[in-house]
Amino acid sequence: MNDLVIRPATPEDIPAIVALLVADSVAVSRESPDDLTPYYAAFERIAADPHQHPTVAVRDGRVVGTLQLSVIPGLSRAGTTRVIVEAVRVHAGERGQGLGTLLMEWAINRSRELGAGLVQLTSDSVRTDAHRFYERLGFVGSHIGFKMTL
Amino acid sequence: MNDLVIRPATPEDIPAIVALLVADSVAVSRESPDDLTPYYAAFERIAADPHQHPTVAVRDGRVVGTLQLSVIPGLSRAGTTRVIVEAVRVHAGERGQGLGTLLMEWAINRSRELGAGLVQLTSDSVRTDAHRFYERLGFVGSHIGFKMTL
Repeated sequence: MNDLVIRPATPEDIPAIVALLVADSVAVSRESPDDLTPYYAAFERIAADPHQHPTVAVRDGRVVGTLQLSVIPGLSRAGTTRVIVEAVRVHAGERGQGLGTLLMEWAINRSRELGAGLVQLTSDSVRTDAHRFYERLGFVGSHIGFKMTL
Repeated sequence: MNDLVIRPATPEDIPAIVALLVADSVAVSRESPDDLTPYYAAFERIAADPHQHPTVAVRDGRVVGTLQLSVIPGLSRAGTTRVIVEAVRVHAGERGQGLGTLLMEWAINRSRELGAGLVQLTSDSVRTDAHRFYERLGFVGSHIGFKMTL
């Protein structure tokens, strides 16, 4: 794992990030890999917001993992700032070798640095392997995640 | 319902918002109502971030409901911006009279105005009444919500 770098994502990473999103069987139908225009537009919105932390894990110059941290100040839990982790993806060829753990441990430490007292994420109910993974890291699956497409 | 106003929260609303947070049996142990200092500090962080929308519902000059919308740009789902709804609370005396529905319908419409293609929230697994409420509004409880206190 010596050659692994975890760093902020740049626009140059977008094709590789979209490839990771598309490789995900649960989410592939939601993506539009033949036209990257909406991803570049979204990256501009992300880059304009200092509370967004789009991130890639790079090994030997290749993007092998990605996630995004969002810092959300709030009143509940005695004014606790929380970090929400979204779009966690690890390249299929890297699975089972500890990259997911490294990436999430990085995310947890970074969340602390960013002033968060709580880190949270949602995972599709069908991703049972991912649920065990998050529980091993110390997350508690205490909530139901509700979503509505607009 | 004619006298109901839904508007951005101000620092003056903090005592009433904390009272709503404390009145919630599931979450009361996480709050510190005897010292509002951390809530005022948190409100400054919220007010400094244009992507946070702390909100109150006011009837006859009294805060009877609250929620916070957070706008999060992202790459997944073809660059969809999402709104996360947190800290939804309705005064006990208002329940069953449609205020929760009005407040959430406001949140959904406001999310559209804010450019979101997805609105999402998590609800503690024990809040089964809330789950039915969100499903009636059109939310799908497709995910598990994982949290870790730091």
